[in-house]
Amino acid sequence: MGKITVVGAGSWGTALSMVLADNDHEVRLWGHKKDQIDEVNQEHTNEKYLPGIKLPKSIKGYYLLEEALVGIDTIVLAVPTKAIREVLKNICSVIKTPLTVVHVSKGIEPDTFMRVSEIIEDEMPGHLLKDVVVLSGPSHAEEVSLRHPTTVTVSSKDLKAAEFVQDLFINQHFRVYTNPDIIGVEIGGALKNIIALAAGITDGLGYGDNAKAALITRGLAEIARLGMAMGANPLTFSGLTGIGDLIVTCTSVHSRNWRAGNMLGKGQNLDQVLENMGMVVEGVRTTKAAYQLANKLNVKMPITFALYDVLFNNKNAKDAVDSLMARGKTHEMEDLSNVLGERA
Amino acid sequence: MGKITVVGAGSWGTALSMVLADNDHEVRLWGHKKDQIDEVNQEHTNEKYLPGIKLPKSIKGYYLLEEALVGIDTIVLAVPTKAIREVLKNICSVIKTPLTVVHVSKGIEPDTFMRVSEIIEDEMPGHLLKDVVVLSGPSHAEEVSLRHPTTVTVSSKDLKAAEFVQDLFINQHFRVYTNPDIIGVEIGGALKNIIALAAGITDGLGYGDNAKAALITRGLAEIARLGMAMGANPLTFSGLTGIGDLIVTCTSVHSRNWRAGNMLGKGQNLDQVLENMGMVVEGVRTTKAAYQLANKLNVKMPITFALYDVLFNNKNAKDAVDSLMARGKTHEMEDLSNVLGERA
Repeated sequence: MGKITVVGAGSWGTALSMVLADNDHEVRLWGHKKDQIDEVNQEHTNEKYLPGIKLPKSIKGYYLLEEALVGIDTIVLAVPTKAIREVLKNICSVIKTPLTVVHVSKGIEPDTFMRVSEIIEDEMPGHLLKDVVVLSGPSHAEEVSLRHPTTVTVSSKDLKAAEFVQDLFINQHFRVYTNPDIIGVEIGGALKNIIALAAGITDGLGYGDNAKAALITRGLAEIARLGMAMGANPLTFSGLTGIGDLIVTCTSVHSRNWRAGNMLGKGQNLDQVLENMGMVVEGVRTTKAAYQLANKLNVKMPITFALYDVLFNNKNAKDAVDSLMARGKTHEMEDLSNVLGERA
Repeated sequence: MGKITVVGAGSWGTALSMVLADNDHEVRLWGHKKDQIDEVNQEHTNEKYLPGIKLPKSIKGYYLLEEALVGIDTIVLAVPTKAIREVLKNICSVIKTPLTVVHVSKGIEPDTFMRVSEIIEDEMPGHLLKDVVVLSGPSHAEEVSLRHPTTVTVSSKDLKAAEFVQDLFINQHFRVYTNPDIIGVEIGGALKNIIALAAGITDGLGYGDNAKAALITRGLAEIARLGMAMGANPLTFSGLTGIGDLIVTCTSVHSRNWRAGNMLGKGQNLDQVLENMGMVVEGVRTTKAAYQLANKLNVKMPITFALYDVLFNNKNAKDAVDSLMARGKTHEMEDLSNVLGERA
């Protein structure tokens, strides 16, 4: 059985701790708030992030990182992308032996355009990093904590590392698939938050399911275009971490990106939305990174560009969506052929 | 301006009549129930199918087909696939000049495996049939009747015919794209109803968004597999009539296929469901056709086969879904590579 520390006691980190505990691993859950960790250890709950859920008693909470990391072999990194570099610095100051790092964060770093696995390699010296594996897919934490059927994908440069992580997590409720295309898996997971924000906007505007389905369809096409320019396999975007995650994020009120977009569609500006959310909205930062990257790589991303204007240039959300809908192009294959490029 | 008869006064036929009337065409709406047609002409409503919606007064209702078809140049065929052959026989006994036939039906005929455009060519003699065009995409009738933004695709063997129909329908709310792949457009529209039934079952079982997203992702892969075996362009399944229509059908309570699946998931059998629906559930017939066709063409369609067992062999719905979720295969690319076959 593995000795695993889940770094980050939000809803997703906590739900993954439950999966690992169900599989009889030794599971430590680290969070920096002492009150929250005391609740995990004494009440076996994490009410703020997974209301109403009873955690397995075998999950031990830690609020001191140096204690949480003693003698473990695997870290599951479940913190917002913005916090990853700082958390990794702290981790590296404590550990002495190389670890497998499983990350479950979804984002691209603005300015550096690094995917999360690249950030991890950038921050952790080689002698402390055994492998980096991403775990991604259509998976609301709330449903995982209820042991509803869920399927996810793991990916790594090293297939053996991905299979090691697959074995850690897989059980009858939580199906884990491997995919060798780590670029595509990370890009799909990151960029879907952009489309979720946009889908929230169309819902906030009261535009209905027809408009949202068109937006998701187009959104997948532009995600795939950028992903391919970054070296991803286009097939990955047809899989669980592409269309699967996109669907679950765009059509569920669980999604905080969708909720943030919904407020934008109802007329709030970005500052108001972020204040009302009180939680990290990954898609906002990812929109900036994708906008920069699309310009650099000369990739057409009309939805991302429209959203960028709404978020950062105070463009009216209704005008942005209406002009997206009314684009002049009328041959669908022109749009779609761009997705698979020369493959068409 | 066109002279168009919409044959079929259900929700979709009526909503499309509204789009055409908004575009100032001469629009006749035919239905066989005199009461309903009197309501269209006198109250300018069609309460049973589009409750609360006021129809443009320019739409003229007809219940006698021979009157409805005098002097027109285009028919929009909006009847259930099961009724198409009989309706076409009636049409052909009345008309004397060749017509453009736009069909908006979604299905494959069991036993013959014909797509709807093929059924039309099979029933109508060449001297009465100018062109066949399919109109398909993510488009709930209710939202179209509210003039919410909607995008659809038209396709025909003859691009000029598709562009003619595009011009008839396109306006600021209703965006129409052309796609030359009529096989892919018709197959995607037909088979998504199978996945909608299955998605309704997982929802009826209370399995949540994660399971449904996985099912839709896998469902798209198996639709694309069968479509390619029938000669479709795989790109079409990434477009509005593929993933777009699949999303809207699987995630909306408007969808009658989803509703039927939902009842199956809650424990009713097919006979009870059909009795409770009181409306045609295209996906039931399409499941049978796809099951036969997949066997004939040797295409793997695990969701379709599981659904077939639930519908026609009284298999328990929960057992069927659970065994789908627990399939042994663990490398995602094995699944996905099958989608695009040699293209991967």
